[in-house]
Amino acid sequence: MRYKLYYWPEIQGRGEFIRLALEDAGADYVDVARTAGGMRQMEKLLDLQGQARPAFAAPFLKAGRQVIAQTANILFFLGPRLRLAPKDEAGRLWVHQLQLTIADWLAEVHDMHHPIGSGLYYEDQKPESSRRAADFIAERLPKFLGYFEHILARAGDGYLLGKTATYADLSLFQMVAGLRYALPRAMARMERQNARVIALHGRVAARPRLAAYLASERRVPLNRQGIFRHYPELDRPAK
Amino acid sequence: MRYKLYYWPEIQGRGEFIRLALEDAGADYVDVARTAGGMRQMEKLLDLQGQARPAFAAPFLKAGRQVIAQTANILFFLGPRLRLAPKDEAGRLWVHQLQLTIADWLAEVHDMHHPIGSGLYYEDQKPESSRRAADFIAERLPKFLGYFEHILARAGDGYLLGKTATYADLSLFQMVAGLRYALPRAMARMERQNARVIALHGRVAARPRLAAYLASERRVPLNRQGIFRHYPELDRPAK
Repeated sequence: MRYKLYYWPEIQGRGEFIRLALEDAGADYVDVARTAGGMRQMEKLLDLQGQARPAFAAPFLKAGRQVIAQTANILFFLGPRLRLAPKDEAGRLWVHQLQLTIADWLAEVHDMHHPIGSGLYYEDQKPESSRRAADFIAERLPKFLGYFEHILARAGDGYLLGKTATYADLSLFQMVAGLRYALPRAMARMERQNARVIALHGRVAARPRLAAYLASERRVPLNRQGIFRHYPELDRPAK
Repeated sequence: MRYKLYYWPEIQGRGEFIRLALEDAGADYVDVARTAGGMRQMEKLLDLQGQARPAFAAPFLKAGRQVIAQTANILFFLGPRLRLAPKDEAGRLWVHQLQLTIADWLAEVHDMHHPIGSGLYYEDQKPESSRRAADFIAERLPKFLGYFEHILARAGDGYLLGKTATYADLSLFQMVAGLRYALPRAMARMERQNARVIALHGRVAARPRLAAYLASERRVPLNRQGIFRHYPELDRPAK
């Protein structure tokens, strides 16, 4: 099965969570919008007209004739197929629950620089961003990190479910990578209390296929068009 | 199977999406935090310590010994069991995709009155709320309504998947009910262009078990502690 991933080619964004799973599994896939003419194909599929089951937004995945959207939903579908999720229902739902919590966290990261409207520029919402980022760093970031730290402590073997990595581990790696880029000062203060989360980041980055991917040109660099953005004025260490 | 639902007893909030599914199916369930001593039971389960697979937040559902959190995840689990989702994988993923889009929409509704921080009062973020609500009404509300209007037009038989209701239909009903309460002026302007969504609201409300539920004391009234809040100053008709 050759999977086709559709996502904005110039950012990591939500698509990166899918890319990491496909890359870690060594799956056969095409990142369509990064191929010649691929952007037009993606835009055509994003047009509601003519689609039986249209996506509200990218990313979406084509697997044969099936088109699946919503990042966590795509990962739920791919998980067992890529051997990145357990096969039993309870295990799959637990990994999905963790992924949905990461999705909530990611939306809050986005809203740090876009608290008023996703269609506006950051420059048009700077005072509001400043307040929101301060609240995120003080209240939300420690809560999310602490939650995953706790799960890792319970599991006890390095990954969220124990000895075997799932797509949620790859996503947690991505959260740490993104947050270190966006909020280096705030993260530096919090890493000591969340040592298991930080160790997981290193463990995932060292997985052979992912290490090769991260060093390749297929990994789009983090930048100020994506979800994780570094604006020094937003990066204040938590008290 | 007697399901146990855990959610804040004084609001509809995210728990209502689960309640609607359980009620429509005539399922055997307990809304634990609304029973004597139930709040303490819920708080105990929300404490990370001692939980094998702790929830980040309510709602969560106990089904036998399994504990499942994240609203859309709970509905994914319940869907086929309550005959509110297809049984085939592609159909289940499509309903889940719609539900996750509703979850994104709901988070944006929440952030209208909490654009800076969920731990702050609305009164502490009124100017920011005013800007965010204007953007939501002008840009996001028409986009979400239009998306579901399009799906209903394609399906052609009154529900999102055609003739048979799924939990996503119940959730779409809830979005309309909540938005009419929170933003009556903005919604009035948009209902004509989204007649199928509005008709679906009526169709769901008339389902016998749901009609009985909505008229009962089990339906918590909408109020200013929940996600859908009516602040007249935020409710400006879109241009």
